Amino acid sequence: MKEFELIKEFFTAQPVSRKDVVMGIGDDCALIKANSGKLIAVTTDTLVAGVHFPLDTPPRAIGHKAVAVNLSDLAAMGAEPCWISVAITLPEVNQQWLAEFTAGVFELTEYFNVQLIGGDTTSGPLSITITAQGTVPEGKALCRNGAQNGDYLYVTGNLGDAGLALAAINGKVELTKVDFDKVLNKLNYPKPQVLAGQLMREYANSAIDVSDGLLADLNHLCQASKLGANIKVEDIPLSETLRNNLSAEAAVAMALSAGDDYQLIFTTSATNKVGLETAMGHANIDFSCIGQLNPSGEIKLSYNDLPYEAPNLGFEHFADNSSKHA
Amino acid sequence: MKEFELIKEFFTAQPVSRKDVVMGIGDDCALIKANSGKLIAVTTDTLVAGVHFPLDTPPRAIGHKAVAVNLSDLAAMGAEPCWISVAITLPEVNQQWLAEFTAGVFELTEYFNVQLIGGDTTSGPLSITITAQGTVPEGKALCRNGAQNGDYLYVTGNLGDAGLALAAINGKVELTKVDFDKVLNKLNYPKPQVLAGQLMREYANSAIDVSDGLLADLNHLCQASKLGANIKVEDIPLSETLRNNLSAEAAVAMALSAGDDYQLIFTTSATNKVGLETAMGHANIDFSCIGQLNPSGEIKLSYNDLPYEAPNLGFEHFADNSSKHA
Repeated sequence: MKEFELIKEFFTAQPVSRKDVVMGIGDDCALIKANSGKLIAVTTDTLVAGVHFPLDTPPRAIGHKAVAVNLSDLAAMGAEPCWISVAITLPEVNQQWLAEFTAGVFELTEYFNVQLIGGDTTSGPLSITITAQGTVPEGKALCRNGAQNGDYLYVTGNLGDAGLALAAINGKVELTKVDFDKVLNKLNYPKPQVLAGQLMREYANSAIDVSDGLLADLNHLCQASKLGANIKVEDIPLSETLRNNLSAEAAVAMALSAGDDYQLIFTTSATNKVGLETAMGHANIDFSCIGQLNPSGEIKLSYNDLPYEAPNLGFEHFADNSSKHA
Repeated sequence: MKEFELIKEFFTAQPVSRKDVVMGIGDDCALIKANSGKLIAVTTDTLVAGVHFPLDTPPRAIGHKAVAVNLSDLAAMGAEPCWISVAITLPEVNQQWLAEFTAGVFELTEYFNVQLIGGDTTSGPLSITITAQGTVPEGKALCRNGAQNGDYLYVTGNLGDAGLALAAINGKVELTKVDFDKVLNKLNYPKPQVLAGQLMREYANSAIDVSDGLLADLNHLCQASKLGANIKVEDIPLSETLRNNLSAEAAVAMALSAGDDYQLIFTTSATNKVGLETAMGHANIDFSCIGQLNPSGEIKLSYNDLPYEAPNLGFEHFADNSSKHA
């Protein structure tokens, strides 16, 4: 019991105290108060050691990533993150490990003013399940099924860097230390696009985050909206590191198929295009228009207006086949 | 991917559809709408195979129990259960197993009108983390720290039956098949005291659920309220099965120290005693007054007004040392 009381102390030392938390950690439940006129967005994601992150991932990265993947789901709804519950299963209680893990959790919760309101600590094989909640004004949430035919298709940031890191870890690509550190940082410490999500909700028709890869997640959005999409391959945003270390084809394949980037895919009408681009530009958010939605129900790729077939280079998402939202 | 799409289908076939769920399963987040004037109670509990339930537990029981332990936490706050998210980690996708597991989940969610709003399914060692949410009118939640000196101390139902089942499973006690089935049912299919929790919130000053054992959980309540308690051992509610199979001393020890009963401990003032007992009686809820709170900060046991020392018979809570709320 004492050992697990210790974990409780780590969690109780959290940095954020929100006015809308009536009761935080320490009772049978937390009690929170949502503003009237707001909906509560709820998401749950589990990270399993050896499945969603390599076994030797630093504990700080595990804590950071467990929070980030959940905040990324809130971002994709246009929600403001508010509260998280952390359920952690640990093979043994290791103080140093816990200190680093909670540092990873708290660096994001503090940055985004998210309060840890509870959780559970259990003994068993290492895994972390976080439930994150946020608020979004009624009628303003960005859903997967809101895309309209002709909408412009966008993505934030660059794609493929996290995939490059995994390929290097798995010995499929060799990188210089500088380049490896750069992309490993993208894999281990993804930045959830929370600000982008909230900004775009005034302009965008739909959004989804890129956890499984551009093609896979865009496909979810297209299916939900009963549409297809044209992607201009030359407009897919690739980092210099990705372009320097892979052939042009392989870099595109990585950006199309690798997951773990936690950027946002979003769509907007021609009417809102300028407003959206202006708002995102003013907020210094990187984004690229990579195509348009079509009514075909299929995703079609082109390169300089010629049809483009995505080569399958066998880069696998670390979590491929292992995770699905219920 | 296909296998996990299959799980999604199991979850999507859930029986409840609530008006306050604006978006259920299928987007990056669920969207829920809380009534104004209500707080949202949030709780998270993980069950790990081999730690919180024996490896050969029927999947229906695992599903039932994973929901029940969370609804029990909501009950202990006096909250009305509304929504759950289920994160399940599975070593392999087994259709029969999933059908039985989800049947166990849904039999409780349907009974209590709780909607499954999302979750995550991942590959790895078997464990289930559920986040349950409910609503409670502002200012009406039952907290651990609300007990007052002199409050009467109550418990719902009987205590010790789940512990007796575990003792039998672990070979420490021998039971007839009829008796074993009776107590195994208590261990595997606990009934969360949801109605009792909502009824008592008009009368009680504090409440907590019995997951770790009467003494351990009463101790949490006493510490939070900065009080002690006197327990009349002769008033602790014991089932006929428990009394028939253990010595009087061992039965009391089991009721005091074994967990997994998921009854509620609660306290009320002398003023509200009659109102509470009348309300609970009208609703056909079993309850017993087992003592009173005292200002000493200690839990004191008596038997027919003589001091009583609880014998330590080494019955261990299956989850002892393995689980602690953050």
